[in-house]
Amino acid sequence: MSQTRFSGVLAPVITPFTDNLRPDSQRFIKHCNWIVTQGANLAVFGTNSEANSLNLAEKIHLLEELVMAGVNPEKLMPGTGCCALSDSIILTKRAVELGCGGVLMLPPFYYKGVSDQGLFDFYAQVIESVADDKLHIYLYHIPPISQISISLGLIEKLAAKYPINIAGIKDSSGDWNQTQAFNDLAIENFAVFCGSESFLLQNMRTGGAGCISATANVNPSAIMGLYKHWQDSGAEQRQKDLNKIRIIFQAYPMIPALKAATAMYGEDSEWVRVRPPLTKLTDEQYSDLSRELSSADFQMPDL
Amino acid sequence: MSQTRFSGVLAPVITPFTDNLRPDSQRFIKHCNWIVTQGANLAVFGTNSEANSLNLAEKIHLLEELVMAGVNPEKLMPGTGCCALSDSIILTKRAVELGCGGVLMLPPFYYKGVSDQGLFDFYAQVIESVADDKLHIYLYHIPPISQISISLGLIEKLAAKYPINIAGIKDSSGDWNQTQAFNDLAIENFAVFCGSESFLLQNMRTGGAGCISATANVNPSAIMGLYKHWQDSGAEQRQKDLNKIRIIFQAYPMIPALKAATAMYGEDSEWVRVRPPLTKLTDEQYSDLSRELSSADFQMPDL
Repeated sequence: MSQTRFSGVLAPVITPFTDNLRPDSQRFIKHCNWIVTQGANLAVFGTNSEANSLNLAEKIHLLEELVMAGVNPEKLMPGTGCCALSDSIILTKRAVELGCGGVLMLPPFYYKGVSDQGLFDFYAQVIESVADDKLHIYLYHIPPISQISISLGLIEKLAAKYPINIAGIKDSSGDWNQTQAFNDLAIENFAVFCGSESFLLQNMRTGGAGCISATANVNPSAIMGLYKHWQDSGAEQRQKDLNKIRIIFQAYPMIPALKAATAMYGEDSEWVRVRPPLTKLTDEQYSDLSRELSSADFQMPDL
Repeated sequence: MSQTRFSGVLAPVITPFTDNLRPDSQRFIKHCNWIVTQGANLAVFGTNSEANSLNLAEKIHLLEELVMAGVNPEKLMPGTGCCALSDSIILTKRAVELGCGGVLMLPPFYYKGVSDQGLFDFYAQVIESVADDKLHIYLYHIPPISQISISLGLIEKLAAKYPINIAGIKDSSGDWNQTQAFNDLAIENFAVFCGSESFLLQNMRTGGAGCISATANVNPSAIMGLYKHWQDSGAEQRQKDLNKIRIIFQAYPMIPALKAATAMYGEDSEWVRVRPPLTKLTDEQYSDLSRELSSADFQMPDL
């Protein structure tokens, strides 16, 4: 049975905070709507969303607000993998109830050196507790931060037992050989997203589904441009243009830099706030980033 | 102004689960009471408690149940450091309201490579949100698992700004030089706990406050024996005897092994369950552990 899968470009949407560091749902909705008008989908509660600095109640509230505001839930792939099994089950269940097209699931990331069996049990508990064919899980492989790898064997075992629920993977290893190996898995309809648009052309040529990338928060239409035209003659040039912008952002702490750019181009200084343990860009970093983006003719149209 | 500080031995209390993997408050209360009768205090919600596999509501519920069951809150040092600032504030506030003698606070541990300023901001936000002189924070340094270090500079800065609230540290680095460095800090009344009883004698001789150790779940009275008699002639032998037991447990995954021993000696097989991503001991490991503990004349009196 063929299942609906995500494809294209998704932004791990940055999360704005009010001056008392609470999630700012109005700015959040506005930014989500902007990303959608630029052609991308919404991987809210990703690493770049500071999702692990938000608690369960805050995430559920933001998700409900988004859907109530009219954002199409089929465009939503919220991050629902938490340290605690109980949080992961509750959040995943709510995402499915709200009609989200999929969920992006980190493995539990506090305990290190855990076994594939333990990780299998974790995902199995969530899947069996939610017990809904509409649950489509995209596994989230980001060992530089989570310190927990999702092995090929684990994916095969999960997909064999839960073929309807295991929909794909996001690979943020930063290692193309790893992304290639995920694409090579003999699992029907398994959607592989690279975690940076730097690998987007390569991923599309290898049969991948698209990318879920930090910079899709600020540069979504250009990234979508490559996604749509990857088979066209100008694709290599599009990839080079994307890389040029990516490299500017990568020279800064990514999350504060994305928020700084959103503040600059949206003329809304409220956007610069981050929750501890992150810190916002220094004034000097902010000015440098602004100058570099201007020099590169960077735009965030209609923000 | 001199503040009350914890000293002695604390157990990071293991958390029992029912057959549907919910926290089992009755067995939890019973085990806490047993540890207290053996002379140790209760660092509930530590690493060995699978605390990061529990969510906020589960932790608050267990803490309330403990206090309602008559456990003296002054003996409680719950772990309240979570990934999310919001969870950390809510849980810490509740611990203080319930009269807990202190809290053990992990730094936020998802984002890696964060700055001391970001960690300072995190702890400062918790302290200023709780806003209570009865909040006594023991910082939790466990880089092998959290992957986030608490630097000497960070501690000095926190203690200078919040001298009443910053009470001490638990060092689970496994590196004696690090524990020594924490003891050498020129901060008045700063209580340094080693994270394993293997360092207890050394820590007491260096001016430390005691230990918070996994095996205090199963061997509390012997560890308390060394704490009470560290200046006596038999102290070296006591340390050797403790090490002998510690080494047996360390050869297994620690949390499942502690639960297995509690199941064996309490004749209560319900205790073996763990939450994913952990897995319980295999039958073979369980038998091996049982045989080794018997050979060492290990006891859990009155369990």
